[in-house]
Amino acid sequence: MNNFLDLCREAIGASHVITNEADMASYLVDWRRRYTGRAQAVLRPGSVEEVAALVRLCVDAGVPICPQGGNTGLVLGSVPDLSGRAVVLSLGRMNRIRDIDLVNNTMTVDAGCILANIQQAADERDRLFPLSLGAEGSCTIGGNLSTNAGGTGVLRYGNTRELCLGLEVVTPQGEVWNGLRGLRKDNTGYDLRDLYIGAEGTLGIITGAVIKLFPRPKATLTALAAMQTTDAALKLLTLARQQCGATLTGFELMSQFCLELVAKHYPQMHAPFPQPYPQYVLLELSDSESEEHAMAMLESLITGALEEETIQDAVVAGSIAQSRALWDIREHITLAQADEGKNIKHDVSVPISRIGDFIHETDALLADRFPGIRMVTFGHLGDGNLHYNVSPPVDMPADDFMERQHEVNQVVHDSVHRFHGSISAEHGLGALKREEIKQYKSAVELRLMGVIKDALDPLHLMNPGKVL
Amino acid sequence: MNNFLDLCREAIGASHVITNEADMASYLVDWRRRYTGRAQAVLRPGSVEEVAALVRLCVDAGVPICPQGGNTGLVLGSVPDLSGRAVVLSLGRMNRIRDIDLVNNTMTVDAGCILANIQQAADERDRLFPLSLGAEGSCTIGGNLSTNAGGTGVLRYGNTRELCLGLEVVTPQGEVWNGLRGLRKDNTGYDLRDLYIGAEGTLGIITGAVIKLFPRPKATLTALAAMQTTDAALKLLTLARQQCGATLTGFELMSQFCLELVAKHYPQMHAPFPQPYPQYVLLELSDSESEEHAMAMLESLITGALEEETIQDAVVAGSIAQSRALWDIREHITLAQADEGKNIKHDVSVPISRIGDFIHETDALLADRFPGIRMVTFGHLGDGNLHYNVSPPVDMPADDFMERQHEVNQVVHDSVHRFHGSISAEHGLGALKREEIKQYKSAVELRLMGVIKDALDPLHLMNPGKVL
Repeated sequence: MNNFLDLCREAIGASHVITNEADMASYLVDWRRRYTGRAQAVLRPGSVEEVAALVRLCVDAGVPICPQGGNTGLVLGSVPDLSGRAVVLSLGRMNRIRDIDLVNNTMTVDAGCILANIQQAADERDRLFPLSLGAEGSCTIGGNLSTNAGGTGVLRYGNTRELCLGLEVVTPQGEVWNGLRGLRKDNTGYDLRDLYIGAEGTLGIITGAVIKLFPRPKATLTALAAMQTTDAALKLLTLARQQCGATLTGFELMSQFCLELVAKHYPQMHAPFPQPYPQYVLLELSDSESEEHAMAMLESLITGALEEETIQDAVVAGSIAQSRALWDIREHITLAQADEGKNIKHDVSVPISRIGDFIHETDALLADRFPGIRMVTFGHLGDGNLHYNVSPPVDMPADDFMERQHEVNQVVHDSVHRFHGSISAEHGLGALKREEIKQYKSAVELRLMGVIKDALDPLHLMNPGKVL
Repeated sequence: MNNFLDLCREAIGASHVITNEADMASYLVDWRRRYTGRAQAVLRPGSVEEVAALVRLCVDAGVPICPQGGNTGLVLGSVPDLSGRAVVLSLGRMNRIRDIDLVNNTMTVDAGCILANIQQAADERDRLFPLSLGAEGSCTIGGNLSTNAGGTGVLRYGNTRELCLGLEVVTPQGEVWNGLRGLRKDNTGYDLRDLYIGAEGTLGIITGAVIKLFPRPKATLTALAAMQTTDAALKLLTLARQQCGATLTGFELMSQFCLELVAKHYPQMHAPFPQPYPQYVLLELSDSESEEHAMAMLESLITGALEEETIQDAVVAGSIAQSRALWDIREHITLAQADEGKNIKHDVSVPISRIGDFIHETDALLADRFPGIRMVTFGHLGDGNLHYNVSPPVDMPADDFMERQHEVNQVVHDSVHRFHGSISAEHGLGALKREEIKQYKSAVELRLMGVIKDALDPLHLMNPGKVL
């Protein structure tokens, strides 16, 4: 027992300072269970004042801090390194919804609130909080903000960054910055809010936020359209944006191979078409008027696209169950790919207009190097964001393939870079991509990031080894 | 003639280095013509490389730089101080639209492009660039970005910040940061983009941007509704958001006194109602479907609001001319107020839910101190942004009133602060509010802003005397 941990116990209560290996385990292993870090303790403060007190103790003792929300990140951003020097600072106990303002359409929340609980609290008041992603039952809003999470609602509502009006942050010096403003307009100085959002806990610890609410749509409709090419899918996107405006809330691309994989491992989930097509788009409309209105809009879009042969077939879900069945296909792609065996994932974005060329060119480069390689390409086409995943050729042992992961990443990310894209569209850099990003960012940008880090966290105690 | 200016002439051509007092005059006087600064020269570079070269020359010679776009700012942010040491760096020659991508819905522009030209270029391609404000015929996109301009489209499309995907910036060291990304999702490090947006040229010079385009609406409808109180106006806002969703693109509040002033000085512009009401709301719907659809939606909203007596009367514009006539009333308030004589303006925001209380309480405080004071209150109610302007009592000499401007500002801004609002919602701080803001920002926030300034611009050459 050292003096530092005693002081932590004094600050937040002994029961909230975890040092037992078994109790620490779940805080130290990453979501995909590929990596386990070490820490001298897990600290679980119950208030912003306690967070600030702990940070000051860490500064005095020179102890690195790894802030953690739901620990559902995919880039090793929320687990500590192997040194064992760091503490994990878990926001999990700070899970209060502090305030809901229905006229201002805002909610003020603790950083440790679980996303699904926030969605539900909004729903109970006839409002929508539109951030939605796979881990929503476990991830926290603080983590969503720190990674600027994306998800399926970005096309209409933007990333987490666009859903936040104000923040409360504990600085690396242990001060509390109260920036919990519920304002749509405020031009009084530097945009600290957006600097902390997406900084993955390397500039300070987000402890609270004011988030935006929206009126709850009266009707949500889902359709699946089939087409020959990704360029046809892009043409449908342009049509849908013109005809449906902000009613278009989802536009997800899936290749035929994605659907084959899902049908193979989940035989009840298959495309509702008599024959296969190369590409599919899952469309979602959310309407503020009525289901009839949304249906008329959707049918008009589909009829037009069929007539001009942009798409070859389409079904509109006639019930919530049918809609669920269509989304189930989309959401089971990752699981089906895992069932199929080891694979290499990429979370990339390119300008929407370049998606067809990007896929065509990158597929060819990979096939050239790995004949028979199987592309599992799907994603948020409306945002230019692809989950461009790769499974080994059927005749290649998965472990041999995985040993060449670096080579695969290099081909894909070099291609992304040529298309002026991003090698991390919605997952962040964490520890996983912090070295790789140096190949793709300019020296100027890396210098600017370093200068900001040095200025705000001169001791480099905040989530060391992440981002930069 | 000094060596520094010779080097500038060499870098960008002698004809683009203005030192003649007469030719410099329009660059040195502010938009409202209340203040004239001094400069050793006005520099007019023609490319980002020339901007970078000039900045390096300024660094070598220790010359402060005042970046300038259309010079239409309202807070003395784009004119130099009185020392005569600075140069004005005008982006006016950099006015090229570099690229338009209709599938990605983006436009890449030089910072010196005039806003109205950008709007028109989008319109010609059946797209909308939704930033719209009074100075749009003169202001530049670089200035809009540097001040995070607001305007009338914020309710639906957000501030300028939300309309920008990527930036090109010349740093205070004379490097070029190429962040011209046309991506909806990119989570690879600190959000430099949003740090430069709204920094009013104090952290670097924005030279180019990738901005978002939207499908052009098929129909735009305008209505004017009359009601008893601002709380009723807020109730109408909630109804309109629920029923019209993203179709609601404008929601402007005007008091009866605003309309009286306009009718007094522009007799052809009067409210189309048989009797006066205390408050009015100008509503705008922009529809992606059709005029019929928008009209049905608007009529349903108005009928419901009349039936439940949230509003007392309403007219819907039946033609573009009628719509123009309604907007003319709104847009002539400032002019009518100027015709009436000197007055004191405030550009404030508070949480939307607090607007009624804010107006009620602040009106009373001012009336208490200045019996007979005339409130000219109007603004973007849907954004919580009021132009809370004040004309002197009819029996008080305007100059006596203007001498007490500081006192009036203090009452209004103290009240804004109590309501957790902003003393500059859309105009920025510039030189005008940089001292005043220190009363309202926490020491922590001021420290963080200073640390960032010192880190990025250690010589403090970028727009000195502005923001902080």
